[in-house]
Amino acid sequence: MKLSKIASIIDADFQGEDVEIIGINTLKDAKENEISFVSNAKYIKEIKDTNAAAVIVSQNDVDEVPSGCSALVCENPYWSVAILSKYFAPAIEDDTLPSPKIGTNSKVSPKAEIANGAVVGANCTVLAHVYVGANAVIGDNTVLYPSVTVYRDCRVGNDCIIHANSVIGSDGFGFATNNLGEHKKIYQNGNVVLENDVEIGSNVSIDRAVFGSTILKKGVRIDNLVQIGHNCEVGEYSVMVSQSGLAGSTTLGRNVVMGGQAAAAGHLKIAAFSTFAARSGITSSIKEPGKTYAGFPLMDHRQWLKLQAKLARLLK
Amino acid sequence: MKLSKIASIIDADFQGEDVEIIGINTLKDAKENEISFVSNAKYIKEIKDTNAAAVIVSQNDVDEVPSGCSALVCENPYWSVAILSKYFAPAIEDDTLPSPKIGTNSKVSPKAEIANGAVVGANCTVLAHVYVGANAVIGDNTVLYPSVTVYRDCRVGNDCIIHANSVIGSDGFGFATNNLGEHKKIYQNGNVVLENDVEIGSNVSIDRAVFGSTILKKGVRIDNLVQIGHNCEVGEYSVMVSQSGLAGSTTLGRNVVMGGQAAAAGHLKIAAFSTFAARSGITSSIKEPGKTYAGFPLMDHRQWLKLQAKLARLLK
Amino acid sequence: MKLSKIASIIDADFQGEDVEIIGINTLKDAKENEISFVSNAKYIKEIKDTNAAAVIVSQNDVDEVPSGCSALVCENPYWSVAILSKYFAPAIEDDTLPSPKIGTNSKVSPKAEIANGAVVGANCTVLAHVYVGANAVIGDNTVLYPSVTVYRDCRVGNDCIIHANSVIGSDGFGFATNNLGEHKKIYQNGNVVLENDVEIGSNVSIDRAVFGSTILKKGVRIDNLVQIGHNCEVGEYSVMVSQSGLAGSTTLGRNVVMGGQAAAAGHLKIAAFSTFAARSGITSSIKEPGKTYAGFPLMDHRQWLKLQAKLARLLK
Repeated sequence: MKLSKIASIIDADFQGEDVEIIGINTLKDAKENEISFVSNAKYIKEIKDTNAAAVIVSQNDVDEVPSGCSALVCENPYWSVAILSKYFAPAIEDDTLPSPKIGTNSKVSPKAEIANGAVVGANCTVLAHVYVGANAVIGDNTVLYPSVTVYRDCRVGNDCIIHANSVIGSDGFGFATNNLGEHKKIYQNGNVVLENDVEIGSNVSIDRAVFGSTILKKGVRIDNLVQIGHNCEVGEYSVMVSQSGLAGSTTLGRNVVMGGQAAAAGHLKIAAFSTFAARSGITSSIKEPGKTYAGFPLMDHRQWLKLQAKLARLLK
Repeated sequence: MKLSKIASIIDADFQGEDVEIIGINTLKDAKENEISFVSNAKYIKEIKDTNAAAVIVSQNDVDEVPSGCSALVCENPYWSVAILSKYFAPAIEDDTLPSPKIGTNSKVSPKAEIANGAVVGANCTVLAHVYVGANAVIGDNTVLYPSVTVYRDCRVGNDCIIHANSVIGSDGFGFATNNLGEHKKIYQNGNVVLENDVEIGSNVSIDRAVFGSTILKKGVRIDNLVQIGHNCEVGEYSVMVSQSGLAGSTTLGRNVVMGGQAAAAGHLKIAAFSTFAARSGITSSIKEPGKTYAGFPLMDHRQWLKLQAKLARLLK
Repeated sequence: MKLSKIASIIDADFQGEDVEIIGINTLKDAKENEISFVSNAKYIKEIKDTNAAAVIVSQNDVDEVPSGCSALVCENPYWSVAILSKYFAPAIEDDTLPSPKIGTNSKVSPKAEIANGAVVGANCTVLAHVYVGANAVIGDNTVLYPSVTVYRDCRVGNDCIIHANSVIGSDGFGFATNNLGEHKKIYQNGNVVLENDVEIGSNVSIDRAVFGSTILKKGVRIDNLVQIGHNCEVGEYSVMVSQSGLAGSTTLGRNVVMGGQAAAAGHLKIAAFSTFAARSGITSSIKEPGKTYAGFPLMDHRQWLKLQAKLARLLK
């Protein structure tokens, strides 16, 4: 889509070269044929190094846009990104894609649906009522139990097991809000990548990235009813126990353990080998690896035990 | 069903006019051809204004029944309602209903099931393994991702998106218990109504009303793995983050935000523009709009921060 | 499988009679044609009474193995059990099993999948996109709503209702971990048994036992989005409210009530008629029946109210 067309869709002023734009991305990851945006002052410092062809900004930030990068000025940049994101969303299914490919020795139930463009590897078991979306790729020796849904463009590795009714690649929870309190969806045009030897329990939700990928690395173990938000990264051999959750863009190092009903806020980095007791509430990044935590607010596990002892004494 | 037949089913004494009864309802909402009940002393004050043809009551409450309204007296009125509710439950599917209607330009997977009596609007995308039940209505431009289940009689508006494996209209959690500790199901004969521009994440459960409707108003955004109990009402543009939940009959005003894993007890009214931090536990109604809360027990968010600081000091 | 073959698979030393082994089991439950293991010092005391033909142990524990029972010695017994468990895992589906049997008056959607070896009783309603696995048994008068998955070998009683997208029999969350932090799956070769008159909400996960059965007894009521771990037992007429959970091997007595988002750790025994307020966190067994608890750490409900009052006073 031409930059001039984009400017017209979001009703923005625009001057500069009218290049072809193929997608939206963050300031940091945008390529020369992509458009980016500044919707949060926190990220303004990244603007000077962006490779984006153009940036959607408010009038306040227009002077920060580096030369060679076009500025599209509008009142609520995030709202404009929301409007625009729909134009870059691929069709949910696409009949013009090639018929799905199924590897040797794989058993795919006739009651499963493998969309055009999808690829299933060798020696897989795909049970009834599974859905594998357009351009999704399933590795070798992988088992998809009934009613598993893998959205378009997602990738599941070799030797994975996904239990019944889990969802890989539903949209991240992203929307812009205007000053009337109305919301507009940010289409989530990224995907989910499960590396090899990942096991996912039943009724799990793993959201696709808004841009780029939500990633679960090799050997990860996810229990039932777990939530993983868009753009998270779960490190090798990390474990998330039932009903735990990660908000968007949080990164777990390797061999992190999240106890049952534990949860982490968004945009955190959690050091490898960290262990969180059941129902821990994590709201800050953790740099030192290998420690054990509990509570909400989160504290060292021994401190938490000490606090509970103090509280018990209050009752006497 | 004749009132005399009802009396006989629940083994109740009955005197008065033997009218035809078409359903069960609350004291407040019952019409002249419906029966109601008093199972909780809290609601006895509503009996004098009821339009119900008859009321199921215990011997204690029989004198409160207004003239012109028949009293059906039994020992455990709620248990009797449970017995009776099954008689008024419609069939799950009904072959005598007309074939489903699909609007122009809608794409319905041959692997979806649209039950007789259902209507799907124009320009919809209904993917594989979706179920739309008897007499359910889906508006225009709506997307139902794989394995979404919409139970009978539920209504989904225009421009809605429901992500994979979510359930609209499962039975509310209702049962009577006798003095042996045994339970008997209260059939949930209401429905769920999603207004226009509602987006529902994956693996969400929204229960149908016992009577009347569970309602999500225009522009509501629901994240993954959220629970909404029977007879709740979620106001315009309200937002519920992943793993949060509402018990039955709670009403959120417009633009309420429930953080991740936050929850509200039943029968509460929450003022518009209230914001609840992650894991808030709401147990009382909130009248003043626009404030921010945290904790369980719930408190003003700044109070919660102050309390945590005090607790941290206890540890020194 | 011959014991000598097992020894070779797990690379263990073995002396004794080369008997045929038909399964893996706990020390306590193993029969004379089964193999057992010691992976946790806590269970070593059970070894002297085991009927197992052989036991996988570390060098440390070899002297505890009773005479007449073969010892298979290896470095990480649990890891060896994981390797072995795969060999005893039955095929997910098995074409050589007899065609499924459907009882009289049962209505099974042509879009449901009933695997070979499965039996559905009389007067059942099995809606579209349901999956009933190999050798699973569904009783009479039972309703399975759309996209319910019942894994192989599981048993559902008479007069049960399972709401949409719930999963009966997904694998318990079991794996061994080696000293590199890598995980290896313990195949879960047990099942789930739901007795008569059990109702399960939508999006519920009930895991199959690793050995033996996960059991929900007569009259149990489970709300939406509830987690029940492997080898749990839920007593008659017990109630679990939405988003509550049980870790593995926990037993609830009869008429226990778990409030919303409440959770219990694993390997606990909870006395009958115990009531847990919403979000209770249970970490110890409870012997005295009929009491009410709240909080995390858990305490008597009145103590919890008193503690909250004290904390409120801290703020003044």
